[in-house]
Amino acid sequence: MTVPLPAGVSLEDMTAALEKFRRIAGDEWVLTGPDAGPYDDPYPITDPETDHRPYAAVAPATTAQVQEIVKVANEHGIPLWPVSRGKNFAYGGAAPVLTGTVVLDLKRLNRILEVNEEFGYALVEPGVSYFDLYDYIQEKGLKLWLDVPDPGWGSVVGNALDHGIGYTPYGDHFAMQCGMEVVLPTGDIVRTGMGAMPGNNSWQLFKYGFGPYVDGMFSQSNFGIVTKMGIWLMPEPPYYEPYMISFEREEDIEQVIEILRPLKVGSIIQNAATVRSLILDASITSTKAQYYDGAGPLPPSAARKIMDDQKLGMWNFCGALYGPPPVAETLWTVIRDSFAAVPGVKFYKVDDRPQGFDLLRHRADTMRGIPKMTEFNLCNWTGGGGHTGFSPVSPITGRDAVKQYEMVKKRMHEYGYDYMGLLAIGWREMHHVSLIVYDQNDADERKKVDELFNILIDEAAAEGYGEYRTHINFMDRIAGTYSWNNNALWRMHETIKDALDPNGILAPGKSGIWPQNRRG
Amino acid sequence: MTVPLPAGVSLEDMTAALEKFRRIAGDEWVLTGPDAGPYDDPYPITDPETDHRPYAAVAPATTAQVQEIVKVANEHGIPLWPVSRGKNFAYGGAAPVLTGTVVLDLKRLNRILEVNEEFGYALVEPGVSYFDLYDYIQEKGLKLWLDVPDPGWGSVVGNALDHGIGYTPYGDHFAMQCGMEVVLPTGDIVRTGMGAMPGNNSWQLFKYGFGPYVDGMFSQSNFGIVTKMGIWLMPEPPYYEPYMISFEREEDIEQVIEILRPLKVGSIIQNAATVRSLILDASITSTKAQYYDGAGPLPPSAARKIMDDQKLGMWNFCGALYGPPPVAETLWTVIRDSFAAVPGVKFYKVDDRPQGFDLLRHRADTMRGIPKMTEFNLCNWTGGGGHTGFSPVSPITGRDAVKQYEMVKKRMHEYGYDYMGLLAIGWREMHHVSLIVYDQNDADERKKVDELFNILIDEAAAEGYGEYRTHINFMDRIAGTYSWNNNALWRMHETIKDALDPNGILAPGKSGIWPQNRRG
Repeated sequence: MTVPLPAGVSLEDMTAALEKFRRIAGDEWVLTGPDAGPYDDPYPITDPETDHRPYAAVAPATTAQVQEIVKVANEHGIPLWPVSRGKNFAYGGAAPVLTGTVVLDLKRLNRILEVNEEFGYALVEPGVSYFDLYDYIQEKGLKLWLDVPDPGWGSVVGNALDHGIGYTPYGDHFAMQCGMEVVLPTGDIVRTGMGAMPGNNSWQLFKYGFGPYVDGMFSQSNFGIVTKMGIWLMPEPPYYEPYMISFEREEDIEQVIEILRPLKVGSIIQNAATVRSLILDASITSTKAQYYDGAGPLPPSAARKIMDDQKLGMWNFCGALYGPPPVAETLWTVIRDSFAAVPGVKFYKVDDRPQGFDLLRHRADTMRGIPKMTEFNLCNWTGGGGHTGFSPVSPITGRDAVKQYEMVKKRMHEYGYDYMGLLAIGWREMHHVSLIVYDQNDADERKKVDELFNILIDEAAAEGYGEYRTHINFMDRIAGTYSWNNNALWRMHETIKDALDPNGILAPGKSGIWPQNRRG
Repeated sequence: MTVPLPAGVSLEDMTAALEKFRRIAGDEWVLTGPDAGPYDDPYPITDPETDHRPYAAVAPATTAQVQEIVKVANEHGIPLWPVSRGKNFAYGGAAPVLTGTVVLDLKRLNRILEVNEEFGYALVEPGVSYFDLYDYIQEKGLKLWLDVPDPGWGSVVGNALDHGIGYTPYGDHFAMQCGMEVVLPTGDIVRTGMGAMPGNNSWQLFKYGFGPYVDGMFSQSNFGIVTKMGIWLMPEPPYYEPYMISFEREEDIEQVIEILRPLKVGSIIQNAATVRSLILDASITSTKAQYYDGAGPLPPSAARKIMDDQKLGMWNFCGALYGPPPVAETLWTVIRDSFAAVPGVKFYKVDDRPQGFDLLRHRADTMRGIPKMTEFNLCNWTGGGGHTGFSPVSPITGRDAVKQYEMVKKRMHEYGYDYMGLLAIGWREMHHVSLIVYDQNDADERKKVDELFNILIDEAAAEGYGEYRTHINFMDRIAGTYSWNNNALWRMHETIKDALDPNGILAPGKSGIWPQNRRG
């Protein structure tokens, strides 16, 4: 099916704009029709023929080309959907909210501009992947570690901008961001923080500069296109030791989270640690068919067998120790003693785990910032490969963990899915990410996922739980749950949007923010 | 002298607005004429009769009153200068940039809305001082520590919004901020982060919420009035030990900073630590007249005598160890071994220091978050009491430390002032704060300070050093040094300013941001 033009855009304007894009970026970097297929949502939830479909894609190579493209888009009223690398497949990949939008693919802006070992930072363009940056650091032999999300093919910039999280002490990626260059929707270009001072020497060292600290405005937003970003990197610690602690019973999650909170708030647990449910962990190391060939959720007997086969608990907590060995030792003593209170708890270091492909052996790499693609194994749990994440934020309490677990599990089972959840423990909050793994080629399955997801959003919001990011399909609905004082925050976002993007060309609908010409 | 009205404001409008402010806040909470004297700059740099003078002040008691006042200000075009408590005396106190502005004093919004021991946070209004919050925590016996700047009478909210720093591991105050309520210049009111979700349970736990992360926009800005703010507090550590390391020679600063960088970047030094110059430290514990009664900077012989008398070095580094004792012990070993390389270095714990009033005994309180007013002793160094800080940011390198020290010291001496500087070592950057202590009642001295300060700004900018905050008198000039791409960042600030504050009523000139009706 031909992708329809966005409302208000004529074929003449689109054709003229694409022609100009070709002159700017080069013929081969403007893709339309079937050639633009890779920019479709890899795991659609609604109708893949009509919804969230890009009209075309353009991939410039430089910031100057980005500026020129933005100017042309203003001239012709063409909506642009910038993606750093577009690899966040669970949340829509490179696909736009609004069908007919032109994807602005920044993958060719892939320069690693600086990696500074002395201060521990990198300055990169949005096309740089975790693999790229990791390889660069290894080649130069620098004593710096990355903090990586699960799949390493994503953009360092894009992940931080989307408030992504990882597994080392630098796990809050946006907190580690320092200094940006941003092309504004009008084509003007700003540098934030110390970067606004010509000849400055601390753009990647000090975030705030002078005056308003605006970097956060460009995260999860459609207020500008980030073309350079600084990210702090962790100096290689003198010692590193990963560990895994497993818990036998479903109901242990309450006690586990109560033990975790003070350890995390008190900085005894140093890294961005996660507690994962059995099936989520098992989906990395095995497939459902190995244990169960029926319909609906995995029965308890099969779960038991997985636990025995793979030395996994009903919940598994992976963490790591970093620092001078006596520090690591001391922290481990406190951590071990704290969790010893849970009946049936099991403690593992890497040598205690089964040989071969094993969960802790895999996470031992992740928790030291080695990018991998292993996590994608979960796509094979039931076949099909489609997956999306439901990701509400909550306080770190046992009560909240149990409540959320029960709410989500009940609905997942009702719709025939396994509960595959993780609790990522941050500075003060817990991200509860539940994966729905489904067959995106089956229209009935898609309909089910859509229905289920909307129920989950509403039920969570009714209890005060809000999502921290989401698939392009649910942005409006989730924005709608952040509605305090008659949607005051989104009304403010709209005011800023209209001021910075008067023609409404940048990413209409991103995070539920629509420009004036497309509202209502 | 009568304070002139701001350009474009008629006496009728001002009178009508003040009358309405009285009805809103109560007669006794609107001050004019000599009664508004406490809102003048306590340490003026230019003419105190004409510059930076408030026309009046209004002190509402509630957020609803703030909203009403803002609406009246819009109606009558009255510029408002919000201050939390207005106690940052070195940078202008409560005084506005623009003469004739009405100060909006938030001191009566002084409720401590919540202190949560389990999660380590407080939710406070802007009128809450460090003393207030400290006393509250002590009364309730909560095991939480504050992070305080030097004088404890200031606002917890105001300090964080101005990117203030303290002395514990929570020393970057804005980094510890979580969730805001903001009255916008139009009178609308937003809650940021999770606060935008009705019935949410993690407003003070998770910063980002969903969509753009906008809190930073309201720091050092005139985009809104923060009426509630969350701040993370440190759980009382199991062990705490302060220390002081002193260095004998001026030139040691280069080696000291080179040693500090990897310790700080590698998280061996846990707190926001400072290296201070001899005279700055001595100004807390003594007066200049005790050692020297001539004109101009203190001679080396007198400096030597201070060092001997007070067991101080030419540079003194105060830090502290926090955590389980074996962790503290290990970190201390690494720190001590690292600094042992500096010839003549001396290490002190509290018991090694002179009895009575002593620098480390004083800092031992500060580094565990006990608010005090001791630092104001420095006002007495030369009498008069006026002081302001020149505060450029730089990389943490010995070369930058020496270069800045020499640049500033040369100019200070040239103008007859002592060099009184500190190097505050943050995550990746160094704040070099040099105090100019002068007699604010002497017109010639004020003229000298103004001249000197402008030279310092320009010379620093020429070397790529930019200030992180400043006295109201220098905001335009410093904003002007952040001029990359034809002042693109400030042009963007203006675009946002005009959208959020179409009548230009909020804090004209704050951080060099002027509304449309007062630009050019």
